[in-house]
Amino acid sequence: MTTNLAEIVAQVRADMESHIGSGRVADYIPALSRVDPRKFGIAVTTCDGETINAGDAEEPFSIQSVSKVFALTIALERVGEALWQRVGREPSGSAFNSIVQLEHEHGIPRNPLINPGAIVVADVILNQRDPKLAITEILEFLRARADDRSVQIDLEVAQSEADTGHRNTAMAYFMRAFGNLNGPVYDVLTTYFHQCAITMNCVQLARAGLFLAGSGRDPISGEQVVKEARARRINAVMMTCGHYDASGDFAFHVGLPGKSGVGGGILCVAPHRASVAVWSPGLNEVGNSLVGSLALERLALLTGWSVF
Amino acid sequence: MTTNLAEIVAQVRADMESHIGSGRVADYIPALSRVDPRKFGIAVTTCDGETINAGDAEEPFSIQSVSKVFALTIALERVGEALWQRVGREPSGSAFNSIVQLEHEHGIPRNPLINPGAIVVADVILNQRDPKLAITEILEFLRARADDRSVQIDLEVAQSEADTGHRNTAMAYFMRAFGNLNGPVYDVLTTYFHQCAITMNCVQLARAGLFLAGSGRDPISGEQVVKEARARRINAVMMTCGHYDASGDFAFHVGLPGKSGVGGGILCVAPHRASVAVWSPGLNEVGNSLVGSLALERLALLTGWSVF
Amino acid sequence: MTTNLAEIVAQVRADMESHIGSGRVADYIPALSRVDPRKFGIAVTTCDGETINAGDAEEPFSIQSVSKVFALTIALERVGEALWQRVGREPSGSAFNSIVQLEHEHGIPRNPLINPGAIVVADVILNQRDPKLAITEILEFLRARADDRSVQIDLEVAQSEADTGHRNTAMAYFMRAFGNLNGPVYDVLTTYFHQCAITMNCVQLARAGLFLAGSGRDPISGEQVVKEARARRINAVMMTCGHYDASGDFAFHVGLPGKSGVGGGILCVAPHRASVAVWSPGLNEVGNSLVGSLALERLALLTGWSVF
Amino acid sequence: MTTNLAEIVAQVRADMESHIGSGRVADYIPALSRVDPRKFGIAVTTCDGETINAGDAEEPFSIQSVSKVFALTIALERVGEALWQRVGREPSGSAFNSIVQLEHEHGIPRNPLINPGAIVVADVILNQRDPKLAITEILEFLRARADDRSVQIDLEVAQSEADTGHRNTAMAYFMRAFGNLNGPVYDVLTTYFHQCAITMNCVQLARAGLFLAGSGRDPISGEQVVKEARARRINAVMMTCGHYDASGDFAFHVGLPGKSGVGGGILCVAPHRASVAVWSPGLNEVGNSLVGSLALERLALLTGWSVF
Repeated sequence: MTTNLAEIVAQVRADMESHIGSGRVADYIPALSRVDPRKFGIAVTTCDGETINAGDAEEPFSIQSVSKVFALTIALERVGEALWQRVGREPSGSAFNSIVQLEHEHGIPRNPLINPGAIVVADVILNQRDPKLAITEILEFLRARADDRSVQIDLEVAQSEADTGHRNTAMAYFMRAFGNLNGPVYDVLTTYFHQCAITMNCVQLARAGLFLAGSGRDPISGEQVVKEARARRINAVMMTCGHYDASGDFAFHVGLPGKSGVGGGILCVAPHRASVAVWSPGLNEVGNSLVGSLALERLALLTGWSVF
Repeated sequence: MTTNLAEIVAQVRADMESHIGSGRVADYIPALSRVDPRKFGIAVTTCDGETINAGDAEEPFSIQSVSKVFALTIALERVGEALWQRVGREPSGSAFNSIVQLEHEHGIPRNPLINPGAIVVADVILNQRDPKLAITEILEFLRARADDRSVQIDLEVAQSEADTGHRNTAMAYFMRAFGNLNGPVYDVLTTYFHQCAITMNCVQLARAGLFLAGSGRDPISGEQVVKEARARRINAVMMTCGHYDASGDFAFHVGLPGKSGVGGGILCVAPHRASVAVWSPGLNEVGNSLVGSLALERLALLTGWSVF
Repeated sequence: MTTNLAEIVAQVRADMESHIGSGRVADYIPALSRVDPRKFGIAVTTCDGETINAGDAEEPFSIQSVSKVFALTIALERVGEALWQRVGREPSGSAFNSIVQLEHEHGIPRNPLINPGAIVVADVILNQRDPKLAITEILEFLRARADDRSVQIDLEVAQSEADTGHRNTAMAYFMRAFGNLNGPVYDVLTTYFHQCAITMNCVQLARAGLFLAGSGRDPISGEQVVKEARARRINAVMMTCGHYDASGDFAFHVGLPGKSGVGGGILCVAPHRASVAVWSPGLNEVGNSLVGSLALERLALLTGWSVF
Repeated sequence: MTTNLAEIVAQVRADMESHIGSGRVADYIPALSRVDPRKFGIAVTTCDGETINAGDAEEPFSIQSVSKVFALTIALERVGEALWQRVGREPSGSAFNSIVQLEHEHGIPRNPLINPGAIVVADVILNQRDPKLAITEILEFLRARADDRSVQIDLEVAQSEADTGHRNTAMAYFMRAFGNLNGPVYDVLTTYFHQCAITMNCVQLARAGLFLAGSGRDPISGEQVVKEARARRINAVMMTCGHYDASGDFAFHVGLPGKSGVGGGILCVAPHRASVAVWSPGLNEVGNSLVGSLALERLALLTGWSVF
């Protein structure tokens, strides 16, 4: 299969050539707006332990909301299914930063993969400690999962997120008003903004997500990161909620659980097969990587990995 | 595997014993409210062509919204991907009969598996013909898929739906106001109400859904009902939208595409494995079969059929 | 004061010259779209019984939603304060034809001067009779109030309203679904559409509203049409709800209770002073007569009739 | 008239006896929850300069949102009609602290008398200065208008508002995200929370509002506080927006512009007649003084001061 997969990945990259540069690079903070829109990287790490990559797969980018999947994993390990008392697991039916639903549903975010849900998750990880401890915990989890200690947080990005994050701040205070934040708003947001500012490349990111393809077990290290049922459930949440209000569309076109970030990265899990990371900074109108989504659709078609 | 599967189905049925009778039977029309809440049936038809069933699997029930999956299939075959100009494929984030989204999104329903979306689908099938022709087309499709000409429409149920369907009528007129209905409202609704009133048993329903498990091909008859890509996409829509505002929860607990109906039936597709139908009339608070959902969660666990 | 008032009205008309023709004529039905956008009429009938008019004050126009004030009066006389069980008296905070609020507030319209509220009022007047009786009752009330039997219903307009009134039909069925309509939807809407199709000129309309300026008593005929408290309350509802989602703006600029119609007419009540009708077909972006609103603001300024 | 008015006020007080103690005292901060629910005070100051009061009219209470009328006056004097670029003047159709409208309308609050609108007004008064200067300006304006330098800010209340004001903080950050706050969120809220914590009694409050009854001129001091047109417009905003989502009800029952506060106070303006302040801490279900509203309805009936 390896030869075959390498050919497929090369094919995907070739097929993307005409699209590269499409979409609109996020510009709400300088560090993101400076990224070259023509970047494109893809890495596939199989459950057999092989990695195929192409393009700018070793160039670091800001993983942004892709981090929400890993933070969710940490929070579930900490408090178990009790997490679902504080955050739902339904698609939101609205934009990633909508506050309307929070008012209608009394401060309980729809799911952990939209901003307010991820802020609740950050509060769970923070656990009323010093934010440095929580940030370190998240970073170390990513380094362990990527099997690469060079994974870093971009402090300029973290600071920019804080400087411009009025809407996230509003959502945090709003949830606090409903009693759904335990830690100080500033500390929770500090944790959240640093988590979003983690920088990885496609190879690292694909490697980091591999345990989700392996029924909770990292097939390379052999470590059981989470129980099988938990891995399945995280994948399920990614499938229904991983692309904000375009989650249905992603399931329709790609047929795999995935989580996008505004930096242009997408982590995609093919259960029992592989973990895939793509990166292309141009976003479509709902904030997901335009070329990255196309690449994953093509990959799913050529591999037959769609779960449907 | 068959022996094994038979044991699993028996186990699922046994595990449900303590739950049977839970939930609240739909009471908005007499024909539904009269149903014995202690009914429970399950049928599993594998891609190998074997059927295992248990309980009241041969007793007919009103499939109601489960019909939306088959109507979607017919409409896609008729107009192809152009259907998506008139109906979305995103989870709604709201109740099955909410009209709020229609106003905010200019008469385009969120997906074809909620009421307004299914009304648009009915309009596509109606195609400005006599409703009798459209109803016959839907019924014949179900009979063919179930390989059983005894599948019927319960005319009392159809009439009751029409008599009480003020909210569906409101949604139809509302979409008409936005230019998203071509046929006369009365004819579209007549088609829709009759489609909802189709009566099947679990064995027939599991058989009818088998083409969705078989990549679009009915593995028993060998007929390619729809192309593989289309079957996958219908499954994707079921996964993200099949249980109204509890679709995320169903994906989380069961991990398979499924579509529920207010009559207590659920059709569930395990790609490349089997088609499953369960029936238990008691509904949970979001309108899906309470015991049926539990049974499917148990079945998915014991078989390992979750796609995640 | 009369001389003075005549001068003021002449001044208002002169001041409007440069604005005449502004705004956008309603075009959803042919009969309205054909109206000359340069028409402008004004009539002021004082509690002393004098009438001053200017411009096209004797040319009939479709009063449309201005009729809602008179229908409200009739319904209150029939069922008294019990009416408020079925319709609120708060500004809607949304467009005149929004259905969102109806879903959130269980089929109870916000007030009787938006479309769904007026449909409930029509249902009250209909009182499960033949719609012809209800329509006649409304028309005769207008004729009596205008002291002019030539007031008519434009049947072409009524028919056009029915042909295009899908959104109103949707709202009627939606309220029926919540049990807030007693009569058949068709009959209620027939009543409503005919009421909207009443044709009057400014002189007739100002005369018809005079009882609201006279504490419920028609100061010319001496007839006590409604009790003083009721007249005051109708005026209050007009003040807070009479211009849809621009009611606050009208109160701010004009300072008088008023009710607009999509035909370009506005009835405005200066308590203890006068009843005023203006007509200019061009509408502003919220559906109220653009020049008519300006004329009333000017009139209120020059007369000092603002209640504030 | 004075004798008559004194009798009327005595009558109103007597009529309230059986109601006193009704409603629910605000309990979100300790200082408010400690207030005796049986307090009732009323003061009427006429444009002739006479004051009639009854009950606990000289006992100070927290004026809370009644302060919004005076803050609006100050802000309008500072930036004039340009204020309406940043805040609307339409009734909200929703609760005083709803954030939904802010999202739908891009950070522009519906009117200056709901919380988010008052926060924008506080930002205008703050004008990027030290909050102490803004707070002093507001306090001095109240003292001048009340002609009483003993008007104070209750610092315990101000601190409690800040400690519990997560929802107001959320709204401030939300508006900041839309670019509709100029000053630092903390400073704006400090100004706002202190403004809400002003303590006055009925006599002072009625006196302070007198300029709004006097066409912008304080009839006692002779000072023209604002121009006539501005006073009328402030009254208009109070009429349509002064009682949150019960403004229509207040206009219906009382027929006068008014503004309520959660401390149980209501300021009510009878144009050209008098300024009225009532105080009774028990609130109705929409957050307005229950007995205070009844007292004003009774007063309006007995005096005939309704503007309608």
